[in-house]
Amino acid sequence: MLASSTLRLPNIRPTPISSNQNPSEPDTKPVPQARKLKGSARLNRWSRARTIRSGRKLDRPDQQVQALEAKRPPVEATESELNSVTKIDGEDDVELRVGKSIYMISDGTGWTAEHSVNAALGQFEHCLVDRGCPVNTHLFSGIDDVDRLMEIVKQAAKEGAMVVYTLADPSMGESAKQACKLWGIPSTDILGPITEAIAAHLGVSPSGLPRGAPGRTIPLSEEYFRRIEAIEFTIKQDDGALPQNLYKADIVLTGVSRTGKTPLSIYLAQKGYKVANVPIVMGIELPKTLFEVDPEKVFGLTINPVILQAIRKARAKSLGFNIETRSNYSEMDYVREELEFARRNFAQNPVWPVIEVTGKAIEETAAVILRLYHDRKHRCSMPGISKRY
Amino acid sequence: MLASSTLRLPNIRPTPISSNQNPSEPDTKPVPQARKLKGSARLNRWSRARTIRSGRKLDRPDQQVQALEAKRPPVEATESELNSVTKIDGEDDVELRVGKSIYMISDGTGWTAEHSVNAALGQFEHCLVDRGCPVNTHLFSGIDDVDRLMEIVKQAAKEGAMVVYTLADPSMGESAKQACKLWGIPSTDILGPITEAIAAHLGVSPSGLPRGAPGRTIPLSEEYFRRIEAIEFTIKQDDGALPQNLYKADIVLTGVSRTGKTPLSIYLAQKGYKVANVPIVMGIELPKTLFEVDPEKVFGLTINPVILQAIRKARAKSLGFNIETRSNYSEMDYVREELEFARRNFAQNPVWPVIEVTGKAIEETAAVILRLYHDRKHRCSMPGISKRY
Repeated sequence: MLASSTLRLPNIRPTPISSNQNPSEPDTKPVPQARKLKGSARLNRWSRARTIRSGRKLDRPDQQVQALEAKRPPVEATESELNSVTKIDGEDDVELRVGKSIYMISDGTGWTAEHSVNAALGQFEHCLVDRGCPVNTHLFSGIDDVDRLMEIVKQAAKEGAMVVYTLADPSMGESAKQACKLWGIPSTDILGPITEAIAAHLGVSPSGLPRGAPGRTIPLSEEYFRRIEAIEFTIKQDDGALPQNLYKADIVLTGVSRTGKTPLSIYLAQKGYKVANVPIVMGIELPKTLFEVDPEKVFGLTINPVILQAIRKARAKSLGFNIETRSNYSEMDYVREELEFARRNFAQNPVWPVIEVTGKAIEETAAVILRLYHDRKHRCSMPGISKRY
Repeated sequence: MLASSTLRLPNIRPTPISSNQNPSEPDTKPVPQARKLKGSARLNRWSRARTIRSGRKLDRPDQQVQALEAKRPPVEATESELNSVTKIDGEDDVELRVGKSIYMISDGTGWTAEHSVNAALGQFEHCLVDRGCPVNTHLFSGIDDVDRLMEIVKQAAKEGAMVVYTLADPSMGESAKQACKLWGIPSTDILGPITEAIAAHLGVSPSGLPRGAPGRTIPLSEEYFRRIEAIEFTIKQDDGALPQNLYKADIVLTGVSRTGKTPLSIYLAQKGYKVANVPIVMGIELPKTLFEVDPEKVFGLTINPVILQAIRKARAKSLGFNIETRSNYSEMDYVREELEFARRNFAQNPVWPVIEVTGKAIEETAAVILRLYHDRKHRCSMPGISKRY
């Protein structure tokens, strides 16, 4: 189970609250740490290149890190860190064997911090996957007083964690920044820079109120109802139910079993679109209404047969299908024939875009669909998804 | 219909692609603009305070903006800008009447940029709501070549838009930054700073590959299947269906009609939790299994009766209930009695936390539930939601 917002993150094993958090001593200063951060040769090259490109003055990264380290109060290696030490080949990475923590602190839900950290961690899949550098993330949401904030920052210092924060109140943000600086904790303000940029752009100062603060409680909007309606509609229309309602949908998805129609429908519904999905099953006629509705809102999904077979085998196993059903559902001949049956249906309806979902995360397919949907709705030379606040 | 990820954004009216995008002249340099940015007195105070706190050198904001403006090629006011000009009282805001645009450019889905911009715009609700400073956002996803990038940046310059970007490839990010600088466009790199901080923290260089790039196509993980299963489970369990399966759920929500059980269940399912929801209806016995499952996974939802009545009236209207049903469902006496019936049920099960959903967005309630859920599962002094990569 994951608290992340992406539907495809590779080989991620969520764990309970890390065991190396010490329940006692909430008020003690962080104790010294013996660990030394050291970048790999590849990181150093990348970092130099980035610095040169950005026109900043080039320091030797090693020197920078060492200077920071001198300031940071060292901590003793905790049990879980010691447990996670594994031998890695490669001269540069010898010091990088311990698990690293990222603390996400928010005065709201924390989903923005989490979303951004997940997206950024996507850039480190090559090392997360092979467990060369295991990362623990800790989300602290609803942190709206300085004492609690300081407690978490101290804990981060103890654990040698980095801190990312989204704090709407500028004084809270400043406290986080200063405390991290004082204790030598690497920290990043996620929303501060964009909020400042928007403030300058609009010529209006931000409210400084976290989401959910009393001053930000707003009467239920029309939009709120529309979204809930979209979700309820989409649930009711799942898996070909109520084909007579297809005309009410904003988007209609169609494809064979296990092309991801249901999670995709739900993802789009959360964004406010009424979605219906119609399964394509070999030998079963598609509902007439599918061909009667505006073809510009219909999207076909297709997938590589080998991958589809693998997914169906896993599915059949988890559902406990008996041998006969299973062979029909996930045997390669049947899979190919069914995809061919879908292809013929798509070919007869050339307006329907056919989207290849192989290897795509749900959000990626959703992005493609919404791009096409909006481009078709508002044909112009500059496609994109727009809204007005 | 919205492409945003929050379920409660006030008074937002999405619009089609803005009509002021010029399909011709894709290769011409941006033409001069006559518009002048000017901050309000409040913004200036806020901005100075922020600068002083951050220890940066204090420039007069007006001078900064004017210096930037001098560099920026002016554009003619476009039709939609002229249309959106309205008279506003207040000496400081005279120049701020035109709609402002924010361009979000991503080489992936763009959801991170969108999520962050939405969160940051939450800080400007006080001005968005009363339409003092209407904002248009434009999402450009899947932008993976420099030509397309430059085309969009030029368009941003023409429109006087600001640019926020998430570009995994450092050379693309640098191109965006330089082009924005050259044309005096305010710009923010959303993921760059956090990616750099994580790189330094882990001692590993980022891959530079956007999500969905060939190098980042990863075999379907166990997690992918688990999430899809969570969504499918949650849909099947919606609205009290299959009470015999409650023991399979990670989280069980219960409350009277229109406390947001369904959208909340779906939101949590997207995060990988199997959620069942059980409606409380006056006079109807709750399923026995609800009292047999682990009470630590059951959450009661409650709401202010006045707000509930308003929501139910809207619902009854949209469903076309007849007068009798409607009066039963949304009359104040009935609403109060039903909430009291729910309260008695909750009181008999003191382990169930009762969450007040009035005025909370779906994500806020979800954050509260997940915090409690994880804290209960892993009792410790430092609550938070953790996972391991």
